[in-house]
Amino acid sequence: MNRSPVSRRNFLKVASVAGAGLTIGACRNPSAVPAEATRAATPPTPTPEPTAAPVAMADSHAAPAAAAAPAAQGNAWEEMDRMHEEGVKIFLDGIDPTNGFWGTPLKHKEENGVKIFELTCQDVQWEVEPGKAVAAMAYNGIVPGPEMRMTEGDTVRVIVHNEMNQSTSVHFHGVSVPNSQDGVPYITQPPIRPGESFTYEFTTRNSGSHMYHSHHNALEQVSKGLIGAFIIEPADKSKEPEVSGDYTLILNDVGIGLTLNGKSFPYTQPIIAKLGDKIRIRYMNEGIMIHPMHLHGLEQLVIFKDGWPVPQPYYCDTLNIAPGERYDVIVDCHTAGAWAFHCHILSHAESAHGMFGMVTAVVVQE
Amino acid sequence: MNRSPVSRRNFLKVASVAGAGLTIGACRNPSAVPAEATRAATPPTPTPEPTAAPVAMADSHAAPAAAAAPAAQGNAWEEMDRMHEEGVKIFLDGIDPTNGFWGTPLKHKEENGVKIFELTCQDVQWEVEPGKAVAAMAYNGIVPGPEMRMTEGDTVRVIVHNEMNQSTSVHFHGVSVPNSQDGVPYITQPPIRPGESFTYEFTTRNSGSHMYHSHHNALEQVSKGLIGAFIIEPADKSKEPEVSGDYTLILNDVGIGLTLNGKSFPYTQPIIAKLGDKIRIRYMNEGIMIHPMHLHGLEQLVIFKDGWPVPQPYYCDTLNIAPGERYDVIVDCHTAGAWAFHCHILSHAESAHGMFGMVTAVVVQE
Amino acid sequence: MNRSPVSRRNFLKVASVAGAGLTIGACRNPSAVPAEATRAATPPTPTPEPTAAPVAMADSHAAPAAAAAPAAQGNAWEEMDRMHEEGVKIFLDGIDPTNGFWGTPLKHKEENGVKIFELTCQDVQWEVEPGKAVAAMAYNGIVPGPEMRMTEGDTVRVIVHNEMNQSTSVHFHGVSVPNSQDGVPYITQPPIRPGESFTYEFTTRNSGSHMYHSHHNALEQVSKGLIGAFIIEPADKSKEPEVSGDYTLILNDVGIGLTLNGKSFPYTQPIIAKLGDKIRIRYMNEGIMIHPMHLHGLEQLVIFKDGWPVPQPYYCDTLNIAPGERYDVIVDCHTAGAWAFHCHILSHAESAHGMFGMVTAVVVQE
Repeated sequence: MNRSPVSRRNFLKVASVAGAGLTIGACRNPSAVPAEATRAATPPTPTPEPTAAPVAMADSHAAPAAAAAPAAQGNAWEEMDRMHEEGVKIFLDGIDPTNGFWGTPLKHKEENGVKIFELTCQDVQWEVEPGKAVAAMAYNGIVPGPEMRMTEGDTVRVIVHNEMNQSTSVHFHGVSVPNSQDGVPYITQPPIRPGESFTYEFTTRNSGSHMYHSHHNALEQVSKGLIGAFIIEPADKSKEPEVSGDYTLILNDVGIGLTLNGKSFPYTQPIIAKLGDKIRIRYMNEGIMIHPMHLHGLEQLVIFKDGWPVPQPYYCDTLNIAPGERYDVIVDCHTAGAWAFHCHILSHAESAHGMFGMVTAVVVQE
Repeated sequence: MNRSPVSRRNFLKVASVAGAGLTIGACRNPSAVPAEATRAATPPTPTPEPTAAPVAMADSHAAPAAAAAPAAQGNAWEEMDRMHEEGVKIFLDGIDPTNGFWGTPLKHKEENGVKIFELTCQDVQWEVEPGKAVAAMAYNGIVPGPEMRMTEGDTVRVIVHNEMNQSTSVHFHGVSVPNSQDGVPYITQPPIRPGESFTYEFTTRNSGSHMYHSHHNALEQVSKGLIGAFIIEPADKSKEPEVSGDYTLILNDVGIGLTLNGKSFPYTQPIIAKLGDKIRIRYMNEGIMIHPMHLHGLEQLVIFKDGWPVPQPYYCDTLNIAPGERYDVIVDCHTAGAWAFHCHILSHAESAHGMFGMVTAVVVQE
Repeated sequence: MNRSPVSRRNFLKVASVAGAGLTIGACRNPSAVPAEATRAATPPTPTPEPTAAPVAMADSHAAPAAAAAPAAQGNAWEEMDRMHEEGVKIFLDGIDPTNGFWGTPLKHKEENGVKIFELTCQDVQWEVEPGKAVAAMAYNGIVPGPEMRMTEGDTVRVIVHNEMNQSTSVHFHGVSVPNSQDGVPYITQPPIRPGESFTYEFTTRNSGSHMYHSHHNALEQVSKGLIGAFIIEPADKSKEPEVSGDYTLILNDVGIGLTLNGKSFPYTQPIIAKLGDKIRIRYMNEGIMIHPMHLHGLEQLVIFKDGWPVPQPYYCDTLNIAPGERYDVIVDCHTAGAWAFHCHILSHAESAHGMFGMVTAVVVQE
């Protein structure tokens, strides 16, 4: 991710809400007057002034989740707070609305009406956070792999090159294909061995938020990163909700660790929206655990499951996504602010060192 | 819990069904004639009389789950049965319909139309069962904290005093609030440090079964007990189902252990209803594991998820609740008896020592 | 399971699709032309010929998941592929459409209009795969126990004989019964002690895919196999979907291991259907973990949960089933082939040694 000073400044210029949050944090006024307090004729009960000295901020931006230095006796909670604050600062300072995972789908060629995509599988070191690289397997060098996007009825050809040290295959999860293109070694095809290539080709029939991933030695290959979004837009665009943003969130856990789109908090990417926007989020669980995703402040309207429209959309604030499932939700950004957005299995989200793993935010700018 | 002899006797006077269960257990007649057997012209096949001596009951009411003394060779199953029976006896003997977690919401003051609630966070020892205290964190001394209840449109002020040895914050989970009141340290407010207080204030907009809980060092603080129900009744009461009882069940696991409303079986509290009653149960999962709650004999009609009405209510007997989720169900008490009610992850409910953890009952009295 | 050469040949004669898969595997042509490639005017990009020698197949059909011999340096991936292929071969070679778990319900006697079923509980050694027996507990010698099937309104008598070394009881999970027939020791009946028998009798009221299982020392007894399907067909048959096959899939995990109907891949039983068939699958989770069941290539239409019709059927490709839950789905076999069908928690389905555990297939024959 490009987290240049320029983009950081650009963001901070417009991110009044998140900036306010930081300011509050910096001035440490625990009796902060609530936004609506002016409505009350009687002011809120006064609260004691803070007695502790201002918390010293470390110069280093080392990942807080990795910092396990024991706190000095007597101020363990201050060290805990310092680590919590540091993580949030890294996250807010790094917000860059112009750069990131979304909006960079895999480019394709077109020949005689066939859309041709190419994927190269490689063993890589993947940085789930700066300086913390883990052994991973990547399509085209990134985890998750690049999003493939097409329209229902398109004929697609997917050429897979295996440059890894073990065989692989690609299964188009949720996609209606001829059996020969289903990607299960020894049942529908031979494995794609090291140095080999394999070509899949089929005409798409069922629209929706689907996935592509390895189906060979899959516990290792999928959990280590051979995953990606395979989105088939409906031929009839009137079936789609009108939204001002479309964000895929691929959940993963054991292989590369607790990640959203291959990154751990505070290096996850927030969703930036404007007040009044309606946005679409496409959840895809490529991990081996459930992840109940909780969005603060804004409700989620569930519209699709596994690419199929639900019979009647329904609201929730916490949506449980099991391995292999996808859900599409609409979020109406009706209230400004930086809204925390995280897995509600708290061991996937916040330790004594602060928030980590499967945490990001929806930032609604006024 | 007050499990006085008086209340016990009061209960047993009316609890004919549960009493019958005990009697059956006591007389140990394995060929008990089924309730409907008289309809059959031919009596049920006779079964052998029990050959073993009556099981001796221990005088002590020590928690059976803690009793791990090895059974003597040759009668291990008798010792197993004895422990199973002891747990059930403690549970049934302790049933007190007049006393318990429910029906004791947090009292509030009212000033100029604002409802004012106060919460004090403390490190406590919490008895998940008599004599078994665990290190916990409590709002106003109890786990879960007291239920807060109000009506949609109410302006509420929640004053939080932190008397613990670490900072905290309060997030109103599922509640639509201004961002400044969202309770995420360093994003929307500073943490509430030891000795400090903090005031939240907002006007409630979305009715439903919500929660309040810590959002700082949350894995520890939530799992150890900084949790409570935050129930916003709809302004239009016609939206509510008519029920004769309203029971919140807060599920928890890793911190204070496998508990329902902060207690482990056999010290959990049963729901007492009368034949023909319709009751409402509000599930809230504050743990880090799923808990599929199974009710015997009576179906559950799911009417709300996360405070939102489901598009069409649906029936089930086992409802899977993920961390952060809430579900409201209606139970029609159409058949009398003591109906077991438990998490169906059996490692959360029954070991060789008998039922434990996330087990209670719905007792329907004739 | 009877996996005789005769039945194997019978199957292979008709299973053109699965046979094709094997052939592809055998000829190891990594540039296999996709079925639809002929539509494209330009042929798919050529791929390199395989350079490795044909993979030698072991003579032994030992379970591949148990084979953990380290691969020689430099060809670890070839050994991995060999194990993957061996598992699939065992599975495909063993397919026998005429023999298996389904279609063998528990026979009953009828006396004066009462349907009488008998169950005998025994400690057994159960082969989850040939040669791999585990300590289990069985009804009538098999895991899961035999399916009980009746019609709504039937009066049934279930006589249970306990020949195990510990007490037991039977709970009819999801079935509306008088409290005395609910099967919870010391609450509704005494336990059925070693050598004793017990008779349940009730008139069925709620149709659906229910279960019977132990409710005494249940973590051990259920996980080790005291489980079975208890299916109450509706009195009004017009409420049932018309299907050409009806398949119960009982999921289990910790006791006897990761199994579908008591067997682990490659010894699980596939569902065999004909092109255009509609089939019904009844999922029942008797384990202690969730199992999101993913079917390749064919969508699942969810019609019942816990025996109750869902308000509006909905489609999915991955259905998350929690412990204690049941779901009935309809699968329209609209595309021929051998479609992998597995739990999508990949640690329950595929290791470096190949597919194992909760994996089977729906084979759609042309």
